[in-house]
Amino acid sequence: MRILITAGGTSEKIDSVRSITNHSTGSLGKAIAEALLEKGIEIDYVTTRQAKQPANDSRLTVHSIEGTLGLLNCLESLLSAHTYFAVIHSMAVSDFTPANSWSQEAFLTAINQLLPQFDNQVSPELLETLVAQSMEQSGKLSSNTDHLVMVLKKTPKVIQRIKAKQPQTKLVGFKLLVDVSEETLFQVARDSLAKNQADYVLANDLTTIKEDQHIGHLLTADKKIGTGHTKPEIAALIVDTLLKNEEPLG
Amino acid sequence: MRILITAGGTSEKIDSVRSITNHSTGSLGKAIAEALLEKGIEIDYVTTRQAKQPANDSRLTVHSIEGTLGLLNCLESLLSAHTYFAVIHSMAVSDFTPANSWSQEAFLTAINQLLPQFDNQVSPELLETLVAQSMEQSGKLSSNTDHLVMVLKKTPKVIQRIKAKQPQTKLVGFKLLVDVSEETLFQVARDSLAKNQADYVLANDLTTIKEDQHIGHLLTADKKIGTGHTKPEIAALIVDTLLKNEEPLG
Repeated sequence: MRILITAGGTSEKIDSVRSITNHSTGSLGKAIAEALLEKGIEIDYVTTRQAKQPANDSRLTVHSIEGTLGLLNCLESLLSAHTYFAVIHSMAVSDFTPANSWSQEAFLTAINQLLPQFDNQVSPELLETLVAQSMEQSGKLSSNTDHLVMVLKKTPKVIQRIKAKQPQTKLVGFKLLVDVSEETLFQVARDSLAKNQADYVLANDLTTIKEDQHIGHLLTADKKIGTGHTKPEIAALIVDTLLKNEEPLG
Repeated sequence: MRILITAGGTSEKIDSVRSITNHSTGSLGKAIAEALLEKGIEIDYVTTRQAKQPANDSRLTVHSIEGTLGLLNCLESLLSAHTYFAVIHSMAVSDFTPANSWSQEAFLTAINQLLPQFDNQVSPELLETLVAQSMEQSGKLSSNTDHLVMVLKKTPKVIQRIKAKQPQTKLVGFKLLVDVSEETLFQVARDSLAKNQADYVLANDLTTIKEDQHIGHLLTADKKIGTGHTKPEIAALIVDTLLKNEEPLG
């Protein structure tokens, strides 16, 4: 039995020395990997250089990525090479990646040149045209300006590739929100489960994650499997659920 | 004798789960700290959670920060508490921090509302007004939009606080450029030395930093002290220069 885990947070390059980084220590993914390795399962572990790593194990193969594009390529290649009993996608993936950026001066010049062609309205089309203009700077952005203006565009939804390639796999998605009611958290998590064709979603709220506490609810489309109160509890909940071969009820 | 070292790269928060991060492994700062500890010198070491850490030592005190503001507060407090023989400021500090950000829809609405008041020109004043508008989102930015627009503002120049507080200290600044001629590198590095009242500047180019190589030139205002070709060589060059008590010639 082989399981694919993603863990940590992606970084999207702004220039050669700066990135937009999604925070995730990778601790939960590490706990899940170690719980599965104890059961003798082969793991492909996709993570970043910054994230915490599971202890070395002959059944563990670590694949290192940085940004969303690298993650997508890595998953496409792994999903072509192996058949996975389950995919546990705990990585915090950037929703946006820098599309273009300007010094204040360059931005004002560019937008004011376009305005007359768009009836002096900043329309979605004007914004598209602006973003599509060639990025003049290469290397490192100059810091010799009062403001930087940056436009970011959506990244591809990596998780949606998983069931597209392996419809039979058990997919565990993760949804992290910040300071919402449990009702909202469950609703948003189940919406993402449906959209991504996940079988389970681990719903958690950043405000309940502290040094020795991590509250996470494992949900199917219509049932709560259980709640873990620490990373080891969440890891055990996910591992036990997957290996009990419980059929998702959604 | 007590020396202050900063190392690693700052992270500026975009929201509760994303940051703009300056890449720096902290390896060079670590090498400098370890070379100074071998000489029996007391070190205050200001760094980030992500950076590589020097080995524990009774003469080493580690201070952990995240963003530019945290760095500024930490340095102000250390510079008030101790007199430093030297300050080695190798940390990669963000030049910009997020000032405001919008979904595409919110940005277009806000800028189009302001345009008539500014003669249908996106002037610096319009941009200021836009940036000063209250940031509606708290917590995590919604990903339910095609583009995010982000405006970043300059951060305070932390390095300039050092000589302002301790004019007698020997200040070593760092300048990293990307793929420039040695002439340009030295000129820009010496400009920063003058502006920051540094005694020395370590000038380096990202394209010459590889796994086992790191080319760094230690400069004063009018002299090249030497060139290191690896991190240990650069560390030795800086340590030897400071401890030889060579007077800066600038």
